[in-house]
Amino acid sequence: MRVQAITWEGGRAAIIDQTKLPRHETYITLDQPAAYARAIERMQVRGAPLIGITAAYGVAQAAVNAHDASPGVFRRRIESAMEKLAATRPTAVNLQWALERMRRALVDAGDAASSRVAGLLVAEAKLVHREQLAADRAIARLGAELIPKGEAALTICNTGALATGGEGTALAAIVRAYREKRIRVVYVPETRPRQQGLLTAWELGRAGVEYRLIADTAVGALLAQKQVSAAVVGADRIAANGDVANKIGTYQMAALCARHGVRFIVAAPVSTYDVHCPNGAAIAIEQRDEREITHLGGKQVAPDECKVWNPAFDVTPRELVSYYVSEHGLFPGGRADRKRRRQ
Amino acid sequence: MRVQAITWEGGRAAIIDQTKLPRHETYITLDQPAAYARAIERMQVRGAPLIGITAAYGVAQAAVNAHDASPGVFRRRIESAMEKLAATRPTAVNLQWALERMRRALVDAGDAASSRVAGLLVAEAKLVHREQLAADRAIARLGAELIPKGEAALTICNTGALATGGEGTALAAIVRAYREKRIRVVYVPETRPRQQGLLTAWELGRAGVEYRLIADTAVGALLAQKQVSAAVVGADRIAANGDVANKIGTYQMAALCARHGVRFIVAAPVSTYDVHCPNGAAIAIEQRDEREITHLGGKQVAPDECKVWNPAFDVTPRELVSYYVSEHGLFPGGRADRKRRRQ
Repeated sequence: MRVQAITWEGGRAAIIDQTKLPRHETYITLDQPAAYARAIERMQVRGAPLIGITAAYGVAQAAVNAHDASPGVFRRRIESAMEKLAATRPTAVNLQWALERMRRALVDAGDAASSRVAGLLVAEAKLVHREQLAADRAIARLGAELIPKGEAALTICNTGALATGGEGTALAAIVRAYREKRIRVVYVPETRPRQQGLLTAWELGRAGVEYRLIADTAVGALLAQKQVSAAVVGADRIAANGDVANKIGTYQMAALCARHGVRFIVAAPVSTYDVHCPNGAAIAIEQRDEREITHLGGKQVAPDECKVWNPAFDVTPRELVSYYVSEHGLFPGGRADRKRRRQ
Repeated sequence: MRVQAITWEGGRAAIIDQTKLPRHETYITLDQPAAYARAIERMQVRGAPLIGITAAYGVAQAAVNAHDASPGVFRRRIESAMEKLAATRPTAVNLQWALERMRRALVDAGDAASSRVAGLLVAEAKLVHREQLAADRAIARLGAELIPKGEAALTICNTGALATGGEGTALAAIVRAYREKRIRVVYVPETRPRQQGLLTAWELGRAGVEYRLIADTAVGALLAQKQVSAAVVGADRIAANGDVANKIGTYQMAALCARHGVRFIVAAPVSTYDVHCPNGAAIAIEQRDEREITHLGGKQVAPDECKVWNPAFDVTPRELVSYYVSEHGLFPGGRADRKRRRQ
């Protein structure tokens, strides 16, 4: 069954509450801009592209809700929604990109009546969403072709339908490779501290794909013992020099793949590329809540007064990447095959 | 306050139930051989040396409890206890080593009266324990000297007093280096799937050592961003060629340390060395319970019918080890400094 992370119907959005997955499939209706911001902050929606889509719908929602207000109030409500949404996840470039699209649509609408502007903003948000669906499909096709025939693929975090609002990026490429019988099993690290690997496990189970959930500590042993064809991962932000900011754990996976000669593929939409960011060192890395480490399932497991170091992302340098795949095509990283590199 | 993982008094042992730590400090009295086997199986005691000590006391307990029985029953009870204890953790060489010591003590006792044999076996178990205390101290001294002055040290799992029954091995070296102001902070990975890092955090807190708990996914980012002087880890078994079987996650930590030029020290007693084992490929790696991955804090978090790959250990090749430290001294691994290598 196809998973739909977000839908828009009857002037409001519905999302799957991803914090309740994989044990409970709960849907939440969003009909106030603040609810969209909360959903992003609480990670009820997550994954860079889906955060962007959610933010776009959040701006559209502000316009829909205020279309009866005076023109001044109407504009202020939209701008206030944009500000709130922009502040939710500073590292997510897709979020800023989606808000910029909405801002431009608002400017393009000029002096049109509020209800007309609201209609245009809803149309723009839907377009952002539809473009993601098409982009995901293109990425999945290209990515699958890059996975060499073999035993297994490896991924990290969740880059499926739950992450993009489409069919997914890195995970969609892996699912496609599995359907094309390029691989026979997918290894899924838990991806502490937030265990988004559980979402990936849920999606793979739904798609009928054979998989194994592993501890994050088992990635090195896996590469040493099993025939892994490729690791395919997403990205939260890709700098101009090819440095990739992604879920904590990506860098060490890339370094281990390099050690074992396993292809390392970064599959992410062009909206993830930030040409204004020169390199990984310029990317601000969020430190996330200490409780992600000190608590398990809502219960404190660490000693009292335990201090933690909990960066949300790490940076993988271009030299460790074999290929970058976007909806516009592929380009080689520092570990690309010679033959392909000359293409 | 000094932590004592196991004590023997009044003809029976008391252990800290490590499955309840770090939130609850609970003590369990062991007075039947089966209780010792259960404590090892349930990981209420853990860590290779402490498992050995516990098994030795378990054999002594069988003798103490049966000293009034007929000589035939007395011997059978001891042998039955040895069999039960030997079967609890097949990978743990210390366990077999400690049982072998008890077996030899039993043989050496010859035809002595049962109560005399029981006394000799208790003395032998206490000796195993006392030797560990002395060995730990020697390892801690040597290990601390090998940690270069700098910002931080890194470890994995738990190799402190809770692991050995003494003051600990790798962690004792780190604590000593901290007291000698060689380092200012210790980074402690959670060490999924069993989170023994929480025990390490608890011990470091008790010892007044500054530490940060991190996700297992953050090791690579840590080495890339912080000034780490050395990683110091324990071992469950060291093969004749220097391959080290240790907690899953050790291999990838070693590979990442090699990449970042960070010293990687294996600190373990000689009882961990298995000269009969030619190399890492010959070491049987336990697959542990799926529920370690599918459940968190007793609650299922993974989807139904989720399959897992959950090896308890991995193998770190000698080429990734800078130094091996035992109570008998140090010897260089494949990454030792040139100067030291020539010693």
